[in-house]
Amino acid sequence: MPEQIRVAVNGYGVIGKRVADAVRLQSDMELVGVSDRRPDYRIESGVVRGLPLFVSDAELIEDFRSAGIEPAGTLDDLLAQADVVVDCTPKGVPAANLPRYRAAGVKVIVQGGEAHAFAGHSFVAQANYAEALGREMTRVVSCNTTSVVRTLGALREAGLLARARGVLIRRATDPWESHESGIMDTLVPERHIPSHQGPDAKDVLPDLDVVTMAVKAAHTHGHLHYWFVEMTREATRDEVVEAFRRTPRIAFVRESDGIVALNSTQELMRDLGRPRGDMWEVALWEDILSVSGRELYYTYEVDNEAIVVPENIDAIRALMGTVTDAETSMRMTDESLGMAREFLRPLAERQVTRA
Amino acid sequence: MPEQIRVAVNGYGVIGKRVADAVRLQSDMELVGVSDRRPDYRIESGVVRGLPLFVSDAELIEDFRSAGIEPAGTLDDLLAQADVVVDCTPKGVPAANLPRYRAAGVKVIVQGGEAHAFAGHSFVAQANYAEALGREMTRVVSCNTTSVVRTLGALREAGLLARARGVLIRRATDPWESHESGIMDTLVPERHIPSHQGPDAKDVLPDLDVVTMAVKAAHTHGHLHYWFVEMTREATRDEVVEAFRRTPRIAFVRESDGIVALNSTQELMRDLGRPRGDMWEVALWEDILSVSGRELYYTYEVDNEAIVVPENIDAIRALMGTVTDAETSMRMTDESLGMAREFLRPLAERQVTRA
Repeated sequence: MPEQIRVAVNGYGVIGKRVADAVRLQSDMELVGVSDRRPDYRIESGVVRGLPLFVSDAELIEDFRSAGIEPAGTLDDLLAQADVVVDCTPKGVPAANLPRYRAAGVKVIVQGGEAHAFAGHSFVAQANYAEALGREMTRVVSCNTTSVVRTLGALREAGLLARARGVLIRRATDPWESHESGIMDTLVPERHIPSHQGPDAKDVLPDLDVVTMAVKAAHTHGHLHYWFVEMTREATRDEVVEAFRRTPRIAFVRESDGIVALNSTQELMRDLGRPRGDMWEVALWEDILSVSGRELYYTYEVDNEAIVVPENIDAIRALMGTVTDAETSMRMTDESLGMAREFLRPLAERQVTRA
Repeated sequence: MPEQIRVAVNGYGVIGKRVADAVRLQSDMELVGVSDRRPDYRIESGVVRGLPLFVSDAELIEDFRSAGIEPAGTLDDLLAQADVVVDCTPKGVPAANLPRYRAAGVKVIVQGGEAHAFAGHSFVAQANYAEALGREMTRVVSCNTTSVVRTLGALREAGLLARARGVLIRRATDPWESHESGIMDTLVPERHIPSHQGPDAKDVLPDLDVVTMAVKAAHTHGHLHYWFVEMTREATRDEVVEAFRRTPRIAFVRESDGIVALNSTQELMRDLGRPRGDMWEVALWEDILSVSGRELYYTYEVDNEAIVVPENIDAIRALMGTVTDAETSMRMTDESLGMAREFLRPLAERQVTRA
């Protein structure tokens, strides 16, 4: 067995804690530790689950000790043991961390909150894994952008994509902070058209003709996308469904199975035993998708907390160069997490027995 | 002064009560009464405000008397005094009422819940007032469809409209029944693409190239629309803004005025002293609207409880043939209600004095 990649996770928040768990599931990776600044219930739950915990700065050690948590060291101690760091700190913080990463000689993955220019490369495994091979840094694009690249990438791969126009209905806030930054009984349009996700997708696939608009709604979990796509030619509904079906990390859901809203998929993830109820796949409604001549219309859900987790795992392998092709890395990641191409049995495979 | 049009309103619900109030504001109309089936707080509030109240069926009179309300008669008694009835009963009920309307010889207006074929004509004042002149029946299209016809009609009138694709984010339920049919913390996509509003708009303007998709969100008041419009040619942002500005029943709102969400317009309507906080206009965000070459993007709000009220008033005049041109009727309606082309002073008209 080859040497394992030693991974540090800086920032044990919504993304960081999920990436840390996913790293621990990889046979070719070792989680050497996580680093954070605040010793609250989230950190303590990581300690309970056996995570080696480090603190961002030495001056914070006493805060952690006061909360009954003994850190294994500082972020610099953690970096000294790592090959690569996944920075999951809040937007803007990675810039301040960069000198410490450089000093430690670790490769760096940042999240979609940072600008493309900061990392010099934006990553979605299925679209441009090879470009990241051996790089010092990459940026895993945001949840919405990841979903855009996966879905439009699927249509592009099938030679069907001419241009795409999408409306993104975003969750107000993440569940863990819905007591302080949610909204109630309203919708909040984004100030600018186009919203950033279209241009962000072009950081990954520069030739996309894509425009997005976005609005914040009064719910806490998951984004819903609506797309108008102009195809390169007339195509059948089956052709389009097949293009999505053969693309990894897109899974079909169906109204006919009772998956009729965001909360349905969330209940399904819990019933399937997913950790934290996470859905790493884009959940695309197979039976709402509609085709009219050269136009295609569809809607899908994005679990904003989970969708970038497999991308971070693949980005680790790409930077380290230990797996040189996207398909192999994605298969390793997807199998380790238990990702699905169908959450339920496809209709065609179900045996209906009548008395 | 010419004889007044004698108007009956059947169904004193969300739309009916607003139409009744609006009829009372018209100098050329007399509200002879409203009819309903259930003697609850809504009816009693109408009685308090001096509405002549009738009951749908004689057998319901005792229910009303038990609730302390003495009806002026039955629906048939009401119809006998009326020239026209505005049917605001729930979807599907007008079919059962029709024989009574026919027997009374009154003209009939139904709402957007009924099929186009039921009325044989679908009405939006600015688009097809003349077609309804002298007809026996018309259908005022639904709130969303009314807004689609107003806005796309404006672009069509300006010669700018090639095709339009829209996403409608609908309120979960009306405020008055949010205790029993709301949704929380989720989004519910409509089962079918396209949603009905696009085809409905073609009932009014048959040559429209329009497709809509719709989703129900976790709020109770107002719909938000996002539109991708392909124009017939490249146009400037100013040209587009001007096309909307000269169209009645579309009013601009601005982020720069602090109108940043649905709740902002609702607070504004209350501050402006609007009855029930109603917004009869389409509220279009002037400073979010964006143009790129031949493409146009914008978002607007529809007050689903109020937007069809002025259309019902105009439909009354059209069926009766007392006012033969749309502009005159719309001006009468809009002035009587106090409708605005700008809710606030346009930026250009504001004096900014600096110390």
